[in-house]
Amino acid sequence: MAAAREAFAERGYEGASIRDIAARAGVDPALVHHYFGAKQRLFLAASEFPVDPAELVPRMLAGPRETMGERVVASIVGLWDLPATRPLLTGIIRSAATDPVAAEMARRLLAEGPFLALARAVDLPDAEVRASLAGTQLMGLAMARYLIGLEPIASMTADELAAAVGPTIGRYLSGDVRLTSGGEPG
Amino acid sequence: MAAAREAFAERGYEGASIRDIAARAGVDPALVHHYFGAKQRLFLAASEFPVDPAELVPRMLAGPRETMGERVVASIVGLWDLPATRPLLTGIIRSAATDPVAAEMARRLLAEGPFLALARAVDLPDAEVRASLAGTQLMGLAMARYLIGLEPIASMTADELAAAVGPTIGRYLSGDVRLTSGGEPG
Repeated sequence: MAAAREAFAERGYEGASIRDIAARAGVDPALVHHYFGAKQRLFLAASEFPVDPAELVPRMLAGPRETMGERVVASIVGLWDLPATRPLLTGIIRSAATDPVAAEMARRLLAEGPFLALARAVDLPDAEVRASLAGTQLMGLAMARYLIGLEPIASMTADELAAAVGPTIGRYLSGDVRLTSGGEPG
Repeated sequence: MAAAREAFAERGYEGASIRDIAARAGVDPALVHHYFGAKQRLFLAASEFPVDPAELVPRMLAGPRETMGERVVASIVGLWDLPATRPLLTGIIRSAATDPVAAEMARRLLAEGPFLALARAVDLPDAEVRASLAGTQLMGLAMARYLIGLEPIASMTADELAAAVGPTIGRYLSGDVRLTSGGEPG
């Protein structure tokens, strides 16, 4: 898994090969095939963040609802900043921007992952829209911070980003989100 | 320019070649070199959106300040949805995710482009931070809508996105943005 994460992060989905991953892990490529099958399945397995979302979500939900967005951003940026996740995250975004299989994976992660769990726990209408709106903000933040190196986003601390971006996530997940320009707050 | 935009959109910065662009335009590669020099300069020239930002920014600033964010999102998504800009936009993001030269271009576009002009016109402190925060949200929106095809983001209308995302851009450019978790609203 460590070898696969390293290879996907360095070379993207298309560039990494089972042969290369096996070489990094010091095993026969046939063994990798035996346990993981096609590259797509290996990528899926390697893309699991080293944190159990079942643990992360209750931690974000605990505490006052008004500051939930700040807790979400602080936890997620803190996770992304870890040396173990950072190259994996940039690898996923890089691959999602260029490869349809990786884009489908990113789509599922954003549509069915922790944001939907959070939006459902908040128990307001339109959980899917709320989760995907939060996904756009966090994906753009990740891209600006880690891939593009946009300043000051790239050098702000997780707490500073939580203070600045948290209210956006809070509004998307648990605040007023109008879904038509003329409609009532939803 | 049309041939260059087409080539960069289809193949990304690294994949497109001066030779290919010249062939699409039906001219000699030497002519392309003569007028544009290196591929990097051609990419910069081709990446200009077919809209003058000097026109766009005053239109976004006109009207009530409380709905400026909605006007920004509606104008920008409307522009992105045009057949002429859409492939260029996906080409820029794709290249920015994988190529350092294109990433530097995207960084400059986000740091010095229309968002900074808007933030400066609003005349509040921290225009650079405000502009880059707006950039993260809009870049994530573009990536979700055009590259990843995240639903319902991909099929919402520009007006629906303006209603849902506009208040985020409004807050970043002209509202309360706290830059430290313990600080006062800035």
